[in-house]
Amino acid sequence: MAKYGPISGFPEWTPGQKMLEQDLIAFIALQFELCGFAPIETRAVEPISVLTNKGDDKEIYLLSRLQDTEKNAEASKEAPEKKESTDKEPLGLHFDLTVPFARYVVEHQHLLSFPFKRYQIQKVWRGERPQEGRYREFYQCDIDVVGAEKLDVSADAEMASVMLKALSGLPIPPVELRINNRKALQGFYKGLGVERLSDALRIVDKLAKIGPEAVGQLLADELKLSAKAVEQILALASLKGGPEVIEQAAALGVKHPLFHEGLSELSQVLELTRSAGPVHVDFSIARGLDYYTGTVYESVLLGHEHIGSICSGGRYDNLAAGGKVPYPGVGASIGLTRLLGYLFGRNLIEVHTKTPVQVMVVLNDLDARAQSFAIADQLRQRGIATDVYHAAQNFKKQLKAIEKRGIPYALFIEENGCSIKTLATGVQESINLDHWLPEKQNSRVRFTCHF
Amino acid sequence: MAKYGPISGFPEWTPGQKMLEQDLIAFIALQFELCGFAPIETRAVEPISVLTNKGDDKEIYLLSRLQDTEKNAEASKEAPEKKESTDKEPLGLHFDLTVPFARYVVEHQHLLSFPFKRYQIQKVWRGERPQEGRYREFYQCDIDVVGAEKLDVSADAEMASVMLKALSGLPIPPVELRINNRKALQGFYKGLGVERLSDALRIVDKLAKIGPEAVGQLLADELKLSAKAVEQILALASLKGGPEVIEQAAALGVKHPLFHEGLSELSQVLELTRSAGPVHVDFSIARGLDYYTGTVYESVLLGHEHIGSICSGGRYDNLAAGGKVPYPGVGASIGLTRLLGYLFGRNLIEVHTKTPVQVMVVLNDLDARAQSFAIADQLRQRGIATDVYHAAQNFKKQLKAIEKRGIPYALFIEENGCSIKTLATGVQESINLDHWLPEKQNSRVRFTCHF
Repeated sequence: MAKYGPISGFPEWTPGQKMLEQDLIAFIALQFELCGFAPIETRAVEPISVLTNKGDDKEIYLLSRLQDTEKNAEASKEAPEKKESTDKEPLGLHFDLTVPFARYVVEHQHLLSFPFKRYQIQKVWRGERPQEGRYREFYQCDIDVVGAEKLDVSADAEMASVMLKALSGLPIPPVELRINNRKALQGFYKGLGVERLSDALRIVDKLAKIGPEAVGQLLADELKLSAKAVEQILALASLKGGPEVIEQAAALGVKHPLFHEGLSELSQVLELTRSAGPVHVDFSIARGLDYYTGTVYESVLLGHEHIGSICSGGRYDNLAAGGKVPYPGVGASIGLTRLLGYLFGRNLIEVHTKTPVQVMVVLNDLDARAQSFAIADQLRQRGIATDVYHAAQNFKKQLKAIEKRGIPYALFIEENGCSIKTLATGVQESINLDHWLPEKQNSRVRFTCHF
Repeated sequence: MAKYGPISGFPEWTPGQKMLEQDLIAFIALQFELCGFAPIETRAVEPISVLTNKGDDKEIYLLSRLQDTEKNAEASKEAPEKKESTDKEPLGLHFDLTVPFARYVVEHQHLLSFPFKRYQIQKVWRGERPQEGRYREFYQCDIDVVGAEKLDVSADAEMASVMLKALSGLPIPPVELRINNRKALQGFYKGLGVERLSDALRIVDKLAKIGPEAVGQLLADELKLSAKAVEQILALASLKGGPEVIEQAAALGVKHPLFHEGLSELSQVLELTRSAGPVHVDFSIARGLDYYTGTVYESVLLGHEHIGSICSGGRYDNLAAGGKVPYPGVGASIGLTRLLGYLFGRNLIEVHTKTPVQVMVVLNDLDARAQSFAIADQLRQRGIATDVYHAAQNFKKQLKAIEKRGIPYALFIEENGCSIKTLATGVQESINLDHWLPEKQNSRVRFTCHF
């Protein structure tokens, strides 16, 4: 007997939740396209050498052919050395959409125009050990702009604008986008004489958890920084807000060309995103800064900051080795499954819809099937999802079942036309099939937000 | 250096082709929903015991954690017996959408209302050996209706209607749906005294390849059938067409209750699909008949019959063991990737679109960026995909690059307003940003059908 049940880390939604997820994906894709991003979809697998190219420590699912494995198991009983696979290189499931995108750009560079703007909404897989709250299969919604050789900092601003457009149209709590800049931090730390940047960033990343005092202590103990340097680092990390904090950062008095280049980039991004929504500079952001080379993004749900960033990304110097030229780029990713898993799991979004059906045709008797299907088709042709009840039960029983399925309307075929009963109110009235429309509140996916 | 290149069996489209595929998936999903099917999406993986439950001989991709494998490899050098995985049961990628659907129904049976109508559009994977024309990753578009304990034959007709609605709206050559019925064939063969039904079907399935004479010879040689029985089998298999062929089949004179039950079901399906499109009975269909228990479907692209069925399915008695009651159902599946792979590969569909961008704003100078972004946003808010040129090159160079990307319109910001140049005609005229719309032929995805 096969095992039927959930598998930790592989979430599945109800049909109604899936309908909402579809709508959100379509909305996000539309925003990306309106802003000029072209969709690509890459295969789910890459050769292991591509996945492990950057020395990433992501957990990878390796594939093997079951039939090979079985043959190998048998073969190995007789001759253990015959265990080679027939495929040239083992394949693994992609753990993000950046690595496949990099491969795609290098593979098709002669066909693409640069700057190349792409979006990609696909599932990714991570071979994590089963653990509560860790997803092993999830959707990511990625956008990236890559240039050939160079890419203006205005692309960093565009990234922020596009993500805000996508996020602010979703049925989620208000979002705040926070940015920082690797050059600003690196220059600042260099100006203070701090050499071990990534160690310093790792310590500063603990600010929210252990507070400034403990962070200061660690900086002094582990990195042997002077009291003055520690004070300056903590002062910079406390700056959060609009353009004024960039001035305040400059006023801390640290002199280093990279620091001022970073501040200038932050200013330009703020300037170009002024009308896009809430973009704040936050000099305490340290995560991702040893990977990215310029602007970095994080975003939080206001009132739900504890779940961490729901959309992150940053600027990089070269998307992929193997190109004719370097491909500098900037990208960001919305963790859609993680977001929905939180909202559904805490009942912050409650989906009422169980089926797309808006109108169920009540079946008068078995001989009425052909006529009922024809009437259903008339409504379908006008974009109204319609079904025909499956059995000629008495009307009371049919209506009860229709209501239980959360379908808003029941249609009766009468001698001289049709009538529709609104189940929520019990009101029944004659209708003209060519003109009747469901009310707005009975639209495709019905849900309530509890936030 | 990682290996960047295509992998046999894992097709990838260009951005324009992907846009078309997205549109087709949305269209198919809409047709399914209008007919009352609810979407579900199942995880990509199932425990191996679920995948191999029915003794299917599909090629399965088994997953393992790369990190485990590496650890195991090291561990095995020291202590070969420590090779157990930490996961309880190995997982594999699903090779179709029926097996996961069956698991979903049993797992959630208490939450579902029956008959349950679901659709599912997802990728599936098959661990085939690399081979030209064999896909290892592809989209399937499935619909199924399952009842609890019973399901009326009208569901078989509905399945045919829905599939014709979906297929006839796609930009593909005309489709003909062909149906047969397992009961009709089984009853006919039993009535003739043929016992080895699946052997007989396997031989009859060769009709198109080797012709009636050779099939008759095989039936006589392998199954020791009488000349009369062979003649009758070949006579039935030659019947193709509308309701009249059901009468002709009955007139062959074979008496068996199952035969007449099957013919009656075929009649009902034809009757209820009369207005749906081209549905023909074809008694030569033998494929799938040892798996299905009633109606079976195949469909061909007229003029392209050699690629085989692009949408198949049938009626089954029980979707899954493990339910409270049997779940009889009927389902069908469109092989979307195979279909598009053929149409793109033979250049039967030629996609001209390279990017969703319809309007590119020409950049006057670097200081005009903020203004250019604001104007782009005005068009985007009205649903027109717009981008801003990335560099302040001279106009001639910008226009050439815009044309090369296949973008239909260039927008110029002038002192007293904006003008738009249609690149195909060279015509440039002043526009009102609040009212201008692209022409119909410059819609989102532009493609030509060569069939």
